[in-house]
Amino acid sequence: MTISMYQASVPVVIRTLNNLVGILEKGAKHAETKKIDPSVLVNSRLFPDMFPLSRQVQIASDIAKRGVAQLAGMEAPKFEDNETTFVELIDRIHKTISYLDTFKPEQVDGSEERTITLQMPNNTLSFQGMPFLLYFVLPNVYFHVTTSYDILRHCGVELGKLDYLGQP
Amino acid sequence: MTISMYQASVPVVIRTLNNLVGILEKGAKHAETKKIDPSVLVNSRLFPDMFPLSRQVQIASDIAKRGVAQLAGMEAPKFEDNETTFVELIDRIHKTISYLDTFKPEQVDGSEERTITLQMPNNTLSFQGMPFLLYFVLPNVYFHVTTSYDILRHCGVELGKLDYLGQP
Repeated sequence: MTISMYQASVPVVIRTLNNLVGILEKGAKHAETKKIDPSVLVNSRLFPDMFPLSRQVQIASDIAKRGVAQLAGMEAPKFEDNETTFVELIDRIHKTISYLDTFKPEQVDGSEERTITLQMPNNTLSFQGMPFLLYFVLPNVYFHVTTSYDILRHCGVELGKLDYLGQP
Repeated sequence: MTISMYQASVPVVIRTLNNLVGILEKGAKHAETKKIDPSVLVNSRLFPDMFPLSRQVQIASDIAKRGVAQLAGMEAPKFEDNETTFVELIDRIHKTISYLDTFKPEQVDGSEERTITLQMPNNTLSFQGMPFLLYFVLPNVYFHVTTSYDILRHCGVELGKLDYLGQP
């Protein structure tokens, strides 16, 4: 018994995105309770040249849906990146999860050695499926979910590690 | 072909910790260049009740070495958590990597269904090996490495995503 490409991708990413929904809901609730304009939180960032919360959430969504789609040899739906509120960001993550939910194990399994090509601004990156998942997709999704958490924590939202990890 | 428990754990965690070393080296260099007391960065945190950089690094080390050891049915070495400088934190991560380097695939492979028990302050958590790795160890390691990155970025250290991901 080993880990299938599906097991290491779809349910892992869905769980992480569900946790992100919970984190965003606590952000929205915090703004409401403290009578803070929620757009202040949505536009918060940790340093002037880092992305704000809204963009962190959009990128988490993009890496997740594109990553799984590429493993399956498909193209993910494009979203417009026009979310400006907690409700819209949460809706985007729900749409991302619904898309990921459509994948069946047989679409992703067997992609360990599939060649994945990423067009970057200045060059093209080429991966095999397994390192693409383990060294690019998963760390990237965790990066943007953690940074979303860190931005909201930095703004005073009461979050704990279990909001990020989910209930074991 | 699928992913072995070893492939999904030891090299993934080692790569992430090596990237953390690079991030810490850039933090140390930044302090030197800007003539900032490096201990200000080592003790920085994103919110008063979050852990400072030093503790984030210690926890990343602990989760990595304990996680892999538990999959192998072993006990990881305890470190003293007394690091107060960039040099000491980098040394700790190097020691962690050296320890992880001692594991052979056959020690970790086959641990998918091994029962892993974690003693928490108020209760005991029990996992099977595969969900322990995919839903606890890896997201936790990424959380503390990303938060280390976020703390240093927040302090003005010039870091980019490739410092976190490593060169593809």
